[in-house]
Order: sequence, then structure tokens, then C-alpha cells
Amino acid sequence: MNLIILTDTDRIGNKQYRLSDHRAGHILAVLKLEVGDTVEVGLLNGPQGRARLESIDNDRVDLVCEELAVIPPPTPQVNLVCALPRPQTLKKILITSAMMGVRALHLVRANRVEKSYFQSPLIQPENQLPFLLEGLSQGKLTRVPDVQVHDRFRPFFEDRLNRLDGNDESSSSRLLCSTEDAGSLDTVFDPGAVRVTVAIGPEGGWVPFEVELMQSVGFKPFLLGRWTLRVEHAVTAALSQLELLRTMG
Amino acid sequence: MNLIILTDTDRIGNKQYRLSDHRAGHILAVLKLEVGDTVEVGLLNGPQGRARLESIDNDRVDLVCEELAVIPPPTPQVNLVCALPRPQTLKKILITSAMMGVRALHLVRANRVEKSYFQSPLIQPENQLPFLLEGLSQGKLTRVPDVQVHDRFRPFFEDRLNRLDGNDESSSSRLLCSTEDAGSLDTVFDPGAVRVTVAIGPEGGWVPFEVELMQSVGFKPFLLGRWTLRVEHAVTAALSQLELLRTMG
Repeated sequence: MNLIILTDTDRIGNKQYRLSDHRAGHILAVLKLEVGDTVEVGLLNGPQGRARLESIDNDRVDLVCEELAVIPPPTPQVNLVCALPRPQTLKKILITSAMMGVRALHLVRANRVEKSYFQSPLIQPENQLPFLLEGLSQGKLTRVPDVQVHDRFRPFFEDRLNRLDGNDESSSSRLLCSTEDAGSLDTVFDPGAVRVTVAIGPEGGWVPFEVELMQSVGFKPFLLGRWTLRVEHAVTAALSQLELLRTMG
Repeated sequence: MNLIILTDTDRIGNKQYRLSDHRAGHILAVLKLEVGDTVEVGLLNGPQGRARLESIDNDRVDLVCEELAVIPPPTPQVNLVCALPRPQTLKKILITSAMMGVRALHLVRANRVEKSYFQSPLIQPENQLPFLLEGLSQGKLTRVPDVQVHDRFRPFFEDRLNRLDGNDESSSSRLLCSTEDAGSLDTVFDPGAVRVTVAIGPEGGWVPFEVELMQSVGFKPFLLGRWTLRVEHAVTAALSQLELLRTMG
């Protein structure tokens, strides 16, 4: 836990927050802080900075925020489209997406996605939140990704995605993580894009129809590397390579 | 399982291999292959290609290798130095190292490494092998990383590493994954290096003495990104960014 994430329900005063769950445990048992010490905190979807430990009452701690500042998100904004994975993999992707600053995570149906995955409790936002918070807390970020589930493939790519992009394709770069022969990410990355959307397929890959449809709406294929990765590793790898290219400008 | 890894102990003839474990199960139950079908195989630390299913006897399959070819490893060769992580994390790093083509994985003692980690059964090569094979099988590679455990920090960096580099520092690029302010990987990556060694710290980071010593023997700090990653994600991220820069040349 590199950042204690505070939410509205923790708030007991203007800048005062009260914790009694695993976050309090982390502050007391792992960080071993005492009254007067400070700790890194962030307000969910808000600014981050430090808070001072005001009081300890058994396993409960009261914090007062100090020096909070909004950290502006970098450009381009990164969105992720994943074929809905098995629940165990979805947990990892939720954590990674939050940890690495993904703005929106779209989980879509695909030919090689098992129907039962759409029945998982993890499809419900309230069950996703703990994993998203864990990721934010690890990555030291506060903005929770917007997670959306799309149970039809074609309408998502042909219609919904354009509306999410504000019907302005010019500001958006669409990239398709490919298992076929393709160039590396730098050959398709547009440093001027305001928004990048990366699509990552299911175990077993997209079927040809899906690849053709995605390419017809502007997704450009690229190869992460010479190896074949599991979905959760492909997510980390793609976000890492994007971050490098973003920094290189 | 994207590649069936075959070992000497599976061999029953010149190009004939007999499997009766989870690999046979994968061929029969997941891939649902029949006699005459072919499957992607690789010989451990050797060539890879296809094998034909020669016979099935209950849960046992016999394969005959065809069209095997050596795939030359890319340049630069990538070595990884990790502060020995907790056993659960070590499993993930063993898998990832094999999956992403790491040549040597050095697990070193550091100030923030718990002493108990050196008592883990996973320190023994025979307990590492299943995770390495899983990684090779996922990444479609055959060369098993050389895993070495170093229980003293200073002798490893001051002496052992130079000998591993053939006392020829000029061909070698040493990089230190940093949590402090530093440039991105491209600012320290040398496209002409024959060998790249990337060091990744423990949870909680290296202590200042360790960073100073590593820098004194040529390790150059870089930042993976704006986030703070867990060790297993840092490994995937660093190897992904190196692969991108290698491909960009």
C-alpha cells in the first residue's frame, strides 16, 4: 500500500478522515506511525498529498489532510479494450488498470470468450471496486478507471466506441495488440494523439472476423514482442511500452 | 500451453518422445488432437518446430519431431538482477523470466530482503524448474534462464558480476530500475550493447548504500513510468520496454 486512498464515506470533517479497516491496520502495523506522523494519501478521483495522524483509538485512526494537490493526468489518455477474461484474470486486469492509470477499461464479448464469464459476480461494479482501489493504492494514483462491460461485440466497435471518442477519430489512436506478423508499437503509435485505445484479445486470440472488423474501424495491429504472453502480462507490457513512447514524445 | 517443451527424459527414439503427464493431457483434452495431427514443440535448450502425433494409448502420447529449427536469440541478451523476493513473487518472476527470454536471473540478498526467503524451497533449482518450464511453454521459447542465488550483496556487484560479463564492461549495459527521479529507459539504453543487465529492487526499494554501490559499478538509473509497481509488474514492464527499444534499434 503505497498510497492510502480516502473516500467520502471516511470523511468526518472538513479535512478529517477516520479509518478503521485494513488501511488503519497498514498505518499502525506496517508503517508503525504514531500521532503527529504523516502518511501519503489521495482522495478517490481527487488530489493527493500527505495527511497527519491526529489520533489513534485502538485500531481506529483519524487523519487530517495537509498539502493536497491535483496531479494532472498525462497525455495521451489510455483506454483499454479487453475481451472479457476469466474472473481470476479479470481481477489482475482491474488491479493493473488502476495501478497503471488506465482511464477506461472496456470488457467486450468475443467469439473465444466463454459465456459463463458474463455471469461472474465480478461483472458488478461493487465487486470490482476493491481491486481497483488496491491498484490505485499500489500505483499511487487516485483516479479510478471507468469500467464498462459490453455484451455485444459488433455494436461496441461500430457504434459505442465512436460515441465514447466524441465522434472525433482524429484525436484518437486505436491500436490492436496482435499475435500475427506486425511492427512494434512505435510503428503505429501517434505521439500527437489525445487518446489511445489499445485492444487485447482473449486467450486463444481474436477470430479473423473480429480482427477485420476492428481494422475496419481504425485499429492498427502491432506486436508487443517476440514472445506469446498471457492476457494479464500483455496488459502490463502494452501499458509499459505506451508509457515509454509517451515519455519519449 | 503454447509450446510443448520436450526434455531428454521424454525421449524414446531418435526423434521420438513419449509423454504421459499434463502435456499429454493438454494435447488430448484441450487441443483434442488425433493421431496424424501436429503440434508445436520445442526441445529444452534446443530447436523448436512441430511434432506429429504418432500414437495414443489411454493418457499417453508418442510424438515424432519434424521440421525443428534453432531460433537464434536476439541481441542484446537480457539478464535480470532481482533482490530475492518472497516465494509467491519469486514463482511469478521465474515464470516471467522464462516466458520473456531472460538469459540469466540473479537473485541477490539486499537490506530489505527478509532472511527467511533464503530458506524457501524455491531456492533449489529442482523446485524452480516447473515454473521455468511453464514460462517457456507460455512464451514459446526453449532456452531456460540460468537462475543463480547470491547470498551476499557486495561480492556479487563488485566481483561476480564482472566475471559473468567476461570482465568486458564495454559490451555490457547495466541499468537500475529506480524509484527516484530519473529519465525513462531510452535515456540509458545502449542499442549497441551485446548484453543488458537490469536490476530491480525489493518491495520497499534498495537502501541508499546499495544504490550507491550499484552506481559505482556502472548501473544507470531509469524510471519505468509515473507509477509505483510491484516487483512482478516491474519485471514485465522492464522486459517489455527493453524489447521495444531493441526492436526500434
